[in-house]
Amino acid sequence: MAERERIARFFAPLAQAEPGSFALTDDAATLAPPAGHSLVVTTDSVIGGIHVLPGATAAQFAQKLVRRNLSDLAAMGATPWRYFLNLHTPRDTPDAWFAEFTAMLAQEQTQFGMVLAGGDSTSGGDIIHATMTCLGLSGTTQLLRSKATVGDDVYVSGTIGDAALGLQLLQHALATDAAGEAFLSQRYHIPEPRLELSGMLHGIAHAVIDVSDGLLADAEQIARSSSVQVRLTRASVPLSNAARALVQQDETYWQHILGGGDDYELLFAAPVAQRAALAELPVTRIGEVVAGEGVMLDGSPASGGWEH
Amino acid sequence: MAERERIARFFAPLAQAEPGSFALTDDAATLAPPAGHSLVVTTDSVIGGIHVLPGATAAQFAQKLVRRNLSDLAAMGATPWRYFLNLHTPRDTPDAWFAEFTAMLAQEQTQFGMVLAGGDSTSGGDIIHATMTCLGLSGTTQLLRSKATVGDDVYVSGTIGDAALGLQLLQHALATDAAGEAFLSQRYHIPEPRLELSGMLHGIAHAVIDVSDGLLADAEQIARSSSVQVRLTRASVPLSNAARALVQQDETYWQHILGGGDDYELLFAAPVAQRAALAELPVTRIGEVVAGEGVMLDGSPASGGWEH
Repeated sequence: MAERERIARFFAPLAQAEPGSFALTDDAATLAPPAGHSLVVTTDSVIGGIHVLPGATAAQFAQKLVRRNLSDLAAMGATPWRYFLNLHTPRDTPDAWFAEFTAMLAQEQTQFGMVLAGGDSTSGGDIIHATMTCLGLSGTTQLLRSKATVGDDVYVSGTIGDAALGLQLLQHALATDAAGEAFLSQRYHIPEPRLELSGMLHGIAHAVIDVSDGLLADAEQIARSSSVQVRLTRASVPLSNAARALVQQDETYWQHILGGGDDYELLFAAPVAQRAALAELPVTRIGEVVAGEGVMLDGSPASGGWEH
Repeated sequence: MAERERIARFFAPLAQAEPGSFALTDDAATLAPPAGHSLVVTTDSVIGGIHVLPGATAAQFAQKLVRRNLSDLAAMGATPWRYFLNLHTPRDTPDAWFAEFTAMLAQEQTQFGMVLAGGDSTSGGDIIHATMTCLGLSGTTQLLRSKATVGDDVYVSGTIGDAALGLQLLQHALATDAAGEAFLSQRYHIPEPRLELSGMLHGIAHAVIDVSDGLLADAEQIARSSSVQVRLTRASVPLSNAARALVQQDETYWQHILGGGDDYELLFAAPVAQRAALAELPVTRIGEVVAGEGVMLDGSPASGGWEH
């Protein structure tokens, strides 16, 4: 199928709700962000064999691409709005791949309220390389990394380490039961951008980041951006049943949990006065902000992530 | 050099004029497009060995990336404003490559009035793969491909075929003199987005496209989008002295001139009433718009580009 036909058949339907996409037939898109909003823009690539496993399905590729990007919008407290796509695929990529990829994009853009507005595609090479640029909307305030304040509590959403353990499991197999296996690999393949939670953190959180590089590494980002020290307690870090069972067997799994990344949970600092409000949300208090620099875990320096 | 240091040293200076870039240290950028403008967004990738030659310098890579994108903004009549960058480089890419690449970006963004606002980077693989997403501004009207009208004249800016001949020359050597060689290879390496001309076409041109896939192929896009036929005269197509000398030696060079692409000139349709206004601009009348479909060259069907 020629590139133009492929765009018309598989991609143009995703752009239907945005007239300024010109059905992906013009040189650029023309967008009119609704008045009274800031535009929040993020971009991330997903490369076969790096961000997804070499044998990832088209659907897994699409979900990782969308959700990696939306997690960055969540970390800013923004709402998804429009997106652009750059797709570089080997010449022999079958139409069925594009059908599966765009069917999943259709599902994802409906779920998250986004519309495709443009992009480009190239054939060649031997890996799939996709870039998504997401335009989100926010009010006048954003959730930054840099406003953590001495005395704040530190929280994280959901559970930590599942995706990293899922990756270990997919690559090396781990001693876990079938339910644990299904849960951990799903957590790796289909991250959950915390957009709903993010919307509730305006006016509550001082500093927010999404956990993409690993809990300790991302805590370090907050510490650096805010010029503070983040002190965390390992026993407080929220674990899924599957992750807890693994570290009870073997303590070395903590390296994946604290250093592995790909969690796409929100890590944030909030004043003590917000404890009551935060008790209602799916978040766990795991530490505090003090004067100083870097990250301490159970009283020991843990800056630079978990070295392994 | 670690990724964070590399971003701080080489890329953050490019983002200094946009406070919403947070010096490239946060999860996304926050932008406030000036009131009264539409946002015009385009994105294009440049991949080593596909869009630039395998041995391209970092400076050539940067210029092709910027100018390919800006040519799309020119085709919409928009002015460059902010850009995002995704960079995927082999692990052993030296700091000197990033220094040269960003020095050229600095020069380009000054020339074209853009500011870096965000991006991401990944190491791995064995080719350089860069994506740029440009946000431009326009008034309430854009220059589309779809408004060519029966009776319109067809024009093109600059000269056509130089970049395609430059590529031939760089790959296979051509029988041209040193001045011709320097000119043609420069036209391949450093396309000139026609932003100034584009600004003058508002209210004059009915339909505009930039010539990236080749004159005939892009004329076909206007014909298709506007549901008209575009009739071109080969003898009217503006050629540089170097290109003219080559086709005088060997007629087969016309295939590269008409079908080669990478010109990044503007091809547009405008009503006959605008002839006097257009006589003042660096454009050449090369044909007309009639009822029908596809592209005719000297009376023969030339749809689908020049097949070779």
